[in-house]
Amino acid sequence: MNTNRRCGALARALALAFLVAIGTHAQAQTDPLPSWNDGAAKQAITAFVKDTTTQGSPKFVPQPERIATFDQDGTLWVEHPMYSQVMYILESVPALVKAKPELAKVAPYSTVLEILKGDRAAFARLTMPDLEKLAAATLTGMPVKTFAAQAKNWLAEAKDPRWKKPYTELTYLPMQEVLTYLRANGYKTYIVTGGGQDFVRQYSEKVYGVPPEQVVGSAGGTKFGYAKDGKPFLIKEPRLLLNDDKAGKPEGIHLMIGRRPVAAFGNSDGDREMLEYTKAGDGARLAMIVMHDDAKREYAYGPAKGLPATKIGAFSQAFYDEAMKKGFVVISMKDDWKRIFAFE
Amino acid sequence: MNTNRRCGALARALALAFLVAIGTHAQAQTDPLPSWNDGAAKQAITAFVKDTTTQGSPKFVPQPERIATFDQDGTLWVEHPMYSQVMYILESVPALVKAKPELAKVAPYSTVLEILKGDRAAFARLTMPDLEKLAAATLTGMPVKTFAAQAKNWLAEAKDPRWKKPYTELTYLPMQEVLTYLRANGYKTYIVTGGGQDFVRQYSEKVYGVPPEQVVGSAGGTKFGYAKDGKPFLIKEPRLLLNDDKAGKPEGIHLMIGRRPVAAFGNSDGDREMLEYTKAGDGARLAMIVMHDDAKREYAYGPAKGLPATKIGAFSQAFYDEAMKKGFVVISMKDDWKRIFAFE
Repeated sequence: MNTNRRCGALARALALAFLVAIGTHAQAQTDPLPSWNDGAAKQAITAFVKDTTTQGSPKFVPQPERIATFDQDGTLWVEHPMYSQVMYILESVPALVKAKPELAKVAPYSTVLEILKGDRAAFARLTMPDLEKLAAATLTGMPVKTFAAQAKNWLAEAKDPRWKKPYTELTYLPMQEVLTYLRANGYKTYIVTGGGQDFVRQYSEKVYGVPPEQVVGSAGGTKFGYAKDGKPFLIKEPRLLLNDDKAGKPEGIHLMIGRRPVAAFGNSDGDREMLEYTKAGDGARLAMIVMHDDAKREYAYGPAKGLPATKIGAFSQAFYDEAMKKGFVVISMKDDWKRIFAFE
Repeated sequence: MNTNRRCGALARALALAFLVAIGTHAQAQTDPLPSWNDGAAKQAITAFVKDTTTQGSPKFVPQPERIATFDQDGTLWVEHPMYSQVMYILESVPALVKAKPELAKVAPYSTVLEILKGDRAAFARLTMPDLEKLAAATLTGMPVKTFAAQAKNWLAEAKDPRWKKPYTELTYLPMQEVLTYLRANGYKTYIVTGGGQDFVRQYSEKVYGVPPEQVVGSAGGTKFGYAKDGKPFLIKEPRLLLNDDKAGKPEGIHLMIGRRPVAAFGNSDGDREMLEYTKAGDGARLAMIVMHDDAKREYAYGPAKGLPATKIGAFSQAFYDEAMKKGFVVISMKDDWKRIFAFE
């Protein structure tokens, strides 16, 4: 080998090492949102990320302030025909009844047993106080560790009635891409859900890459105590600290995060105050609403834009009109999403 | 320039670029805790970090689970002669009285005015309900943004009576080193304080590198509403959601973080339950207590180990005995800390 060739080999080896070392900065310019069709919604996301992360841009946001919040049910995954956590509550009743057989003949436990036997119409007989009673019975009274194990077991077994897949697979691929894209650009991504904080925390890291400490949800108190062997533990109490829905969302964000989000994503009137609060901040702000207008690939419900009315995740015409007026961006599942699920 | 010299220059340029690119991985093996004297306390920290971050170690902790919690007053900064937030409350009273002059003659406002005029003895006349009333009057009723600005203004002006320095400079350098050392090893560091969450969040990032969302403190509710121009805002309410002291600390940790810490640091009986809860987890755990036994360089108070009794940050003999029995590590300010403040 002559000197020149040796020199070339050395330079190549160093150049390679250099490229490997800076690899994370040298990402190929691939589309970060491949499951999105080109259109105003996709454009709004990429423009927002560019504006807020380009040094010198008038809309630049320093990295510590890059907070993005996502509603879960209906925004990140399927919420019809019923919120998965309500299914958890109902499907936890047989174990309760097994432990206390006298409950089998007492409403609302008896009603739930009928629903689980296939009598879907019985569901209409459950009142809100019934659901609260069932929630207290299935979500509280046990150590936090026991609840975590029960929820994880259920999540591993339970299946959505339409796709016959675990709920944790029914996440929207386009929204997973948004989570990943924002994180790759220095955003901290939070889930802000009306669902139970302790419940969502059992799968948020695995399903969305969102760690438990970045889940804000409806939360009850716990009580610190000691077991007989002196070991300390926390018991889940039926005492609501935060009802993380509607006005409770910005209130929960202040409590748990302490900063106003720069971007927020929702799908229903329950997210209205979170989106208003986010959008009202200074500088660049992104507020987006997933509209369920795809009866074929997922579900269609509103009643905004003449979509069928629903009790689960309703998106009203009034909120739609406000969104248009205030520059919130509506995402049409039908038109904006090329693909909805990873398993398709 | 001949070929060989050109080749050398190219190789050197690439080698330099390579070294710059991997610089963060090539830290010199310097002492991460230079303000600590060699001893059991320093040793406990470095051994814990090594054990929990060495791949293949039986005590290895995956990075997402590396949560460390720190009490603030008395653990990260000076808490004598009085908690800084109590000083904030007292020193906010003149502005209240200016807005409502009739308060000047009404207790507890009149008592506070006497204290601020120099009558330190008047402090003894303030009862706990008085302090709660003063806290409600100075910490609530305003938008969160207004409170943040008021707290920041005070922090920029207020001075500790002994060192005549801003409170934010009275942090313990050895503990700052622990924060930095843990973060450099993949730990997420949290402040878990009996102080007001919204208050501590105004300076935690600047003073400790702990962002607002990693501050767990005593927290009141907020109320979402709209201003006359339709802009949404949050008002601080005199409604306590979390009393983040004693049993409230593990309860607050569960609410805000949702994971049991692997390491926890405190200094008083108010941190007892947090340390017990941390230490009772599986695997490697570190629980440390700062003992104020340095009357000359800082303060001496206990009453553990015969130190003078105190109402502010008391460390009881019973907690000391439990600490010894359970393997909590006591840090002696006098013996373990080479230097206490950065300004020394």
